[in-house]
Amino acid sequence: MRMVDLIIKKRDGQELSDEEIKFWIDGYVKGEVTDYQSSAMCMAIYFRGMSKREIATLTDCMEHSGEVIDLSAIEGIKVDKHSTGGVGDKTSLVLGPMVAAVGGKMAKMSGRGLGHTGGTLDKLESIPNMIIAKTKEQMIEQVNRIGLAIIGQTSSLVPADKKMYALRDVTGTVESIPLIAASVMSKKLASGTDAILLDVTVGEGAFMKNMDMARELARTMVNIGNSLNRNTVAVLSDMSEPLGMAVGNSLEVKEAIASLHGEGPEDLMELCYTSGSIMLTQAKVCDTIEEAREKLHEVVANGKAFEKLCLMVEAQGGDVSYIEHPEKFEVAKKIIEIRSQHDGYIKEIDALEIGVSAMKLGAGRETLDDVIDMSAGIVLACKVGAKVNKGDLLCTVYTNKSEEEYLPVLDEIRAAYDFSNEEVPVLPVIREIIR
Amino acid sequence: MRMVDLIIKKRDGQELSDEEIKFWIDGYVKGEVTDYQSSAMCMAIYFRGMSKREIATLTDCMEHSGEVIDLSAIEGIKVDKHSTGGVGDKTSLVLGPMVAAVGGKMAKMSGRGLGHTGGTLDKLESIPNMIIAKTKEQMIEQVNRIGLAIIGQTSSLVPADKKMYALRDVTGTVESIPLIAASVMSKKLASGTDAILLDVTVGEGAFMKNMDMARELARTMVNIGNSLNRNTVAVLSDMSEPLGMAVGNSLEVKEAIASLHGEGPEDLMELCYTSGSIMLTQAKVCDTIEEAREKLHEVVANGKAFEKLCLMVEAQGGDVSYIEHPEKFEVAKKIIEIRSQHDGYIKEIDALEIGVSAMKLGAGRETLDDVIDMSAGIVLACKVGAKVNKGDLLCTVYTNKSEEEYLPVLDEIRAAYDFSNEEVPVLPVIREIIR
Repeated sequence: MRMVDLIIKKRDGQELSDEEIKFWIDGYVKGEVTDYQSSAMCMAIYFRGMSKREIATLTDCMEHSGEVIDLSAIEGIKVDKHSTGGVGDKTSLVLGPMVAAVGGKMAKMSGRGLGHTGGTLDKLESIPNMIIAKTKEQMIEQVNRIGLAIIGQTSSLVPADKKMYALRDVTGTVESIPLIAASVMSKKLASGTDAILLDVTVGEGAFMKNMDMARELARTMVNIGNSLNRNTVAVLSDMSEPLGMAVGNSLEVKEAIASLHGEGPEDLMELCYTSGSIMLTQAKVCDTIEEAREKLHEVVANGKAFEKLCLMVEAQGGDVSYIEHPEKFEVAKKIIEIRSQHDGYIKEIDALEIGVSAMKLGAGRETLDDVIDMSAGIVLACKVGAKVNKGDLLCTVYTNKSEEEYLPVLDEIRAAYDFSNEEVPVLPVIREIIR
Repeated sequence: MRMVDLIIKKRDGQELSDEEIKFWIDGYVKGEVTDYQSSAMCMAIYFRGMSKREIATLTDCMEHSGEVIDLSAIEGIKVDKHSTGGVGDKTSLVLGPMVAAVGGKMAKMSGRGLGHTGGTLDKLESIPNMIIAKTKEQMIEQVNRIGLAIIGQTSSLVPADKKMYALRDVTGTVESIPLIAASVMSKKLASGTDAILLDVTVGEGAFMKNMDMARELARTMVNIGNSLNRNTVAVLSDMSEPLGMAVGNSLEVKEAIASLHGEGPEDLMELCYTSGSIMLTQAKVCDTIEEAREKLHEVVANGKAFEKLCLMVEAQGGDVSYIEHPEKFEVAKKIIEIRSQHDGYIKEIDALEIGVSAMKLGAGRETLDDVIDMSAGIVLACKVGAKVNKGDLLCTVYTNKSEEEYLPVLDEIRAAYDFSNEEVPVLPVIREIIR
């Protein structure tokens, strides 16, 4: 078998056999297939797509390119959740404790943020002393004990994806649904979970800009999961405006804490209740969505969900006093209020603009080497649909950057807003569920 | 400027600016743009194509990626000829001396063969002591003196094409008309010629399998040449069956010698008369095609064309006695006749099959490291359209390979033939002329 023949086959619109896909991925990981051949193949896939079978095989080969974690030492059906990324997306920090409090088992391996989207690991690390590097034995012990762990992906997992993603990033081949789907699903499968809830975000702040693309990606990933015998469901959620109010690491952790006390923003809570109730039925902890939803409301109301967050932080070495007293989190030196210059209804808060602005204020990384300022970010005062008068607070900006650095960002934040004289209908956060 | 953005731009169907194309090619030659980015770009170009302006700019950047030869020390309009390759294509060895004998100036830089197509340099080297590595000063002196030189491309010419072609060869991006056109034309332009006659072969034995593709490639190359101020004309010639009778290095040289004595096969002679008369008008040596054609017939009839071949061989150190007495060429040890098992008309002699078979008999290279057997090859006894009876000679096979090696090849040669009970119309060798 020669790689060039496989590239030509795909280029000419033919399906690759399972053996051919295996030849590519195994060869690429071993260095026998070159970067320049893999990038040409990825570009051919960008144009020609892949069949369901091809995508499932690609995912399977990538999953098995490295270590595959065995979670069988954890009792019950393990369920994991993955979001395709967004702005203000602290869902895992709220959803994880809620699901665990009802009896779900979630051993989650998470990633860091890059660009305008934040990463769960970075948010967790805003809690002093929090350890996210744990062995899989430690993770298994923790999940068996408290039902929940969120740790960093070990480097032995899915080396094919690491290599391929770095390549796609510099060769214009990121935006391919088969490749995105295989990348996401291979990591989820390798991390050993039995069931998967996918949160496919859609809108300006997300990778998928419109519903058609989001639907296609969701269907593709659900197909992969089910064809590889993992119960997989996708929730399509709105990411045209940021999720919740807070954007920025410790700001989001504080919002997550408030949410677990029952004081979370409506869209974030709705996303957590919907996703959580699906996860609990996937895990067979609950028989129906309605039962699961009721129990999730219960654990928020009675403090059990909040308690799970405390237990997880404690188990991972974090300073629980910050969770119990979130006012302890260090606050940025400069706090600037942005106020409306219009009377009217908020028509748009561009999530991408807000995400990029938060990054520039210090909350995110432009390159992987950047150091994050945990206290930096933006907290919205109101969301799309709100009626505002001139002078009303739109959002508060937190930063430690110099005036020279943050002043232009304030203009960009203002430009993220659009207003209307007429009442603006508010889109539900849950756009669609794909099983 | 970032290469990844240029790849995405092309991938999304937008035109690249001149600066962007220059950034790519210059960066690639310097090693600042990687192989994996260039291969992704080539695949995006394969799918999206390029505008006339983009192709002209690409050619220009590639031409100037290395040395550009200045032939101004040669008096008159220099004219060069390039064939897109075929089986039995010894045209340059016949056409060059013919054109030079009428007064044309041809300083040709040629290449080696790979796969089923032979290379002019390899054919020349079947003449003992023939030197094809000459400096450009030596080449200029030779052309000024005798009107003709055929030498190897110097390694300083068009480094962008060398690097790019090697990459395209292993990444499934050879078959792109803009990339083929830029590759061919950048080399011709860098070799300093004023006018260019392109022989675009079409059919099974050629790179372009059908007239539509051949026409598109021809038009693209003629556009490039004219937009960069070189008089460029393309002849589309048939390559469904081999050109002439002989396939294999010294076998083809012997056929070229016979042709210059006026005893060449009809298709080869017609191609040389048509191409040569165009070249002589491009060079303004003759005013009309008719005048040029007449003079070409003259120099074949009076031996001046043959004399030019002798002069060229002598000037390049070759043993002229082989040209004067072609029976001196070493003959392969095994000579096998293949005879017809049918009564009827020859409907097809698949040029690709014949080319590949000749290669397997020793006449060509499968990889660049293979050593060529100059005496190996196939000589046809008759061509498409001929009436044959069972037992008539179809072709003669020359090889030094073992029986084990050549026996299966004989079957492949037989399989290259197709017969018909009805008379078969013969296609003209010249299919179309594009100016």
